[in-house]
Amino acid sequence: MKLKIIKIGGNVINNKAALTSFLANFSKVTEPKILVHGGGKRATEMIAKLGLKPKMINGRRVTDNASLEVVTMVYAGLLNKNITAELQKNNCNAIGLSGADANSILAHKRIVKDIDYGFAGDVDQVNSSIIKILVTNNLTPVFCAITHDGNGQLLNTNADTIAAEIAKGLSADFEVELIYCFEKLGVLTDVDNDDSVIELINSNSFQSLKQNGIISDGMLPKIDNCFHALQNGVAKVIIGKPEVIINKNLKHTTLVL
Amino acid sequence: MKLKIIKIGGNVINNKAALTSFLANFSKVTEPKILVHGGGKRATEMIAKLGLKPKMINGRRVTDNASLEVVTMVYAGLLNKNITAELQKNNCNAIGLSGADANSILAHKRIVKDIDYGFAGDVDQVNSSIIKILVTNNLTPVFCAITHDGNGQLLNTNADTIAAEIAKGLSADFEVELIYCFEKLGVLTDVDNDDSVIELINSNSFQSLKQNGIISDGMLPKIDNCFHALQNGVAKVIIGKPEVIINKNLKHTTLVL
Repeated sequence: MKLKIIKIGGNVINNKAALTSFLANFSKVTEPKILVHGGGKRATEMIAKLGLKPKMINGRRVTDNASLEVVTMVYAGLLNKNITAELQKNNCNAIGLSGADANSILAHKRIVKDIDYGFAGDVDQVNSSIIKILVTNNLTPVFCAITHDGNGQLLNTNADTIAAEIAKGLSADFEVELIYCFEKLGVLTDVDNDDSVIELINSNSFQSLKQNGIISDGMLPKIDNCFHALQNGVAKVIIGKPEVIINKNLKHTTLVL
Repeated sequence: MKLKIIKIGGNVINNKAALTSFLANFSKVTEPKILVHGGGKRATEMIAKLGLKPKMINGRRVTDNASLEVVTMVYAGLLNKNITAELQKNNCNAIGLSGADANSILAHKRIVKDIDYGFAGDVDQVNSSIIKILVTNNLTPVFCAITHDGNGQLLNTNADTIAAEIAKGLSADFEVELIYCFEKLGVLTDVDNDDSVIELINSNSFQSLKQNGIISDGMLPKIDNCFHALQNGVAKVIIGKPEVIINKNLKHTTLVL
């Protein structure tokens, strides 16, 4: 059976009209599906409103205890439940989850090397059996980027990673397509030119794109993660605009082994 | 099959040690079980921290849009996910839910008569089939006091009512025991005397307790709701201290038809 795992980030979450439109489209996807959402800027805004200081290192949040409370409130509460309610409106039987729910995603607090990221989680295990039970009962899991360590500690976790780990975990039971939605049409050879989408990347072409410096910087670890997912059973990874989930004719990047 | 539906309120939620102890006890309950939790004072504190004004009429929160965002964050995010993670620590496979999740509890925005309670929800329907699927898969649903109207609107809903409605909804499939935990040993004939617990109330004795003015004021609508649940299939209602869930010898009030 096919299963689509779709990840959205800040570019959708931060814009109410974009989110509403995306959720309407998501509801039209006929295959079994899972949504993974990032947090966008609402957590940072809430941290500031509460007089706390958001702290970022290399684009990642340093999650102290107070920040963890806020991201838990915003990601697992405000965003996750409003997304779930909106999907229900669109007749998509969504069930909003964190990794603590049904013990679905176990992680550990990131080991401190150079930088202490605080309560940031690195995923250890996805309990695919319970997610499979939900999906086969026609439910659509909606994961926020919060996991737990099995010892009572919630952990702030990268949403891209959660999507990839769920995709890998479910690939034994489903033909999994992992779709990353972002603000560009796909992986571009020229970041300023939307016509420069690389429509297909496989293991071989990825090596030459890397060697020629065409894929570099921020995109490189993302693509590395995609190939890691493909090497672990995921059938296909797609990178594109949110509309790609219902419009196959929209240009996008497909990654296969 | 037996099913215990256990509701806790502010007296447990507001005290970290009491909550930890309660959740350890809850995890020891061997029968299939569901937890329903209120919000306690954390939402009111957060509303104040954010510079909003908590507004209460007759002990009930008036939920404007800003307050709804806060209760959604605190109830469905902070409290629900920390409770779920703590239960997982205790080897109880909890799954935290709002009424929007899996479309489990449908409500409507309270009709304005004398007082406009804002985004307060009155429950219309519990979708027992999906809750049954979760319970029969050895999951323990943990409900916060947020529902939805099926049209994208989240609603702040009384936790006592949610517990009673879930109990009624599941009574066709289970032998349901509904347990309300609060700060007293049970229904007291003398509110200042813990030895005055009424150990059993049935429909007949309830009538005389009402006529004699022994049950009145705040307790009356609660007991009315309990009998409403009993009349709709719930096998037994228990009112007592949180410890009653694992200690049958602790005095408590049992309500039966």
